[in-house]
Amino acid sequence: MATIELYEAMRTLRAVRRLRPDPIPDDVLRRILEAATWAPSGGNRQPWRVIVVKDPVRKQRLGELYRKVAVPFLHSYAEQLVALPEGERIKREKMLRSGLYLAEHLGEAPVLCVFCFHPDGLAVTDAKLDRVSVVGGGSIYPAVQNLLLACRAEGLGCVLTTLLCMVEPEVREVLAIPQPWGTAAVVPIGYPQLRGHGPISRRPVEEMAFVDSWGQPFA
Amino acid sequence: MATIELYEAMRTLRAVRRLRPDPIPDDVLRRILEAATWAPSGGNRQPWRVIVVKDPVRKQRLGELYRKVAVPFLHSYAEQLVALPEGERIKREKMLRSGLYLAEHLGEAPVLCVFCFHPDGLAVTDAKLDRVSVVGGGSIYPAVQNLLLACRAEGLGCVLTTLLCMVEPEVREVLAIPQPWGTAAVVPIGYPQLRGHGPISRRPVEEMAFVDSWGQPFA
Repeated sequence: MATIELYEAMRTLRAVRRLRPDPIPDDVLRRILEAATWAPSGGNRQPWRVIVVKDPVRKQRLGELYRKVAVPFLHSYAEQLVALPEGERIKREKMLRSGLYLAEHLGEAPVLCVFCFHPDGLAVTDAKLDRVSVVGGGSIYPAVQNLLLACRAEGLGCVLTTLLCMVEPEVREVLAIPQPWGTAAVVPIGYPQLRGHGPISRRPVEEMAFVDSWGQPFA
Repeated sequence: MATIELYEAMRTLRAVRRLRPDPIPDDVLRRILEAATWAPSGGNRQPWRVIVVKDPVRKQRLGELYRKVAVPFLHSYAEQLVALPEGERIKREKMLRSGLYLAEHLGEAPVLCVFCFHPDGLAVTDAKLDRVSVVGGGSIYPAVQNLLLACRAEGLGCVLTTLLCMVEPEVREVLAIPQPWGTAAVVPIGYPQLRGHGPISRRPVEEMAFVDSWGQPFA
């Protein structure tokens, strides 16, 4: 088992999109999958399943679907960057190049983890509000985050992607996912081509946290 | 800084609902909040904010709102338990008693972390599908999970709750949350009254993971 200190794992978990095709040993895969199972979920129902796609034919089909949705998405993202200040733009352009790389190569990762969920297992407490619903994700993405952190521990590159939800019917067909299960994320996993995980860039606590009511900075 | 090995933290992170009212030092709070900021989000936009509620009056008002929605919710949950096999029923009844305790005492936790999100910061790729949308949560709950894991490291009890979304307009008023920000989770945090974190009960990898297509168990 790969060991890493918790805070160290969290603050060096990068989106790693350039992955080597080398296979991942099954005992390593088992550890990252078990880490996902440990996550909390509403009523401990664990209303998700994960399909570990290693078959080259299915990966290639998912890769083609991903390219089809990701390339136009990233091009429209690129158009928004021209208006940004230079420092921010350069950072975003780097992310964009890495995203475009993934758009062309998703199917070459040794493993694609496709997270599915059962709608009846979710208590969607924000379903009736006049805004986009997010609460269903509260019983799914903690498991995805555990898997990503475990990948970090194991030296595996990975990134949380959700673009394939746009073509869920096609993904359903490739992987024989029965109704009413839906898809929540696809995480390509592999050993990094470059440096892999390392320091990340995030907004500071002072911008992200308030005390007692909106707008009072945590200081 | 409290140190703990990553896998150890994940496999001993319990829902701890009986919390002592003792205050949490600000440096500890800062570490768990920073851990949340490290989480990934779509396009690294970090479209969430967290309100750290320590003010007794606001906590009490949130506690009253929570009781109002949680007690009927848990009673209807209790009715479903009678049909379960004994072993499972006993486990669920234990969770229920702990849930009822929290329903009466949420406002007494030293800190309530209220996670908010901005809908425009989410790329909701499953918005047009004919099923409940969950993908917005993909840019919020990884941060919540990081916070929970950091609480585990710091010896702080915590639990991810979403029932207060049912009364979001009232929560918005208590905390002066502006439109169009929504609420995604409330995490009560405090030192545990009893043993706190420890071994958890989850389905094994064999039930949760498939290989290559739906229904082929990972073995």
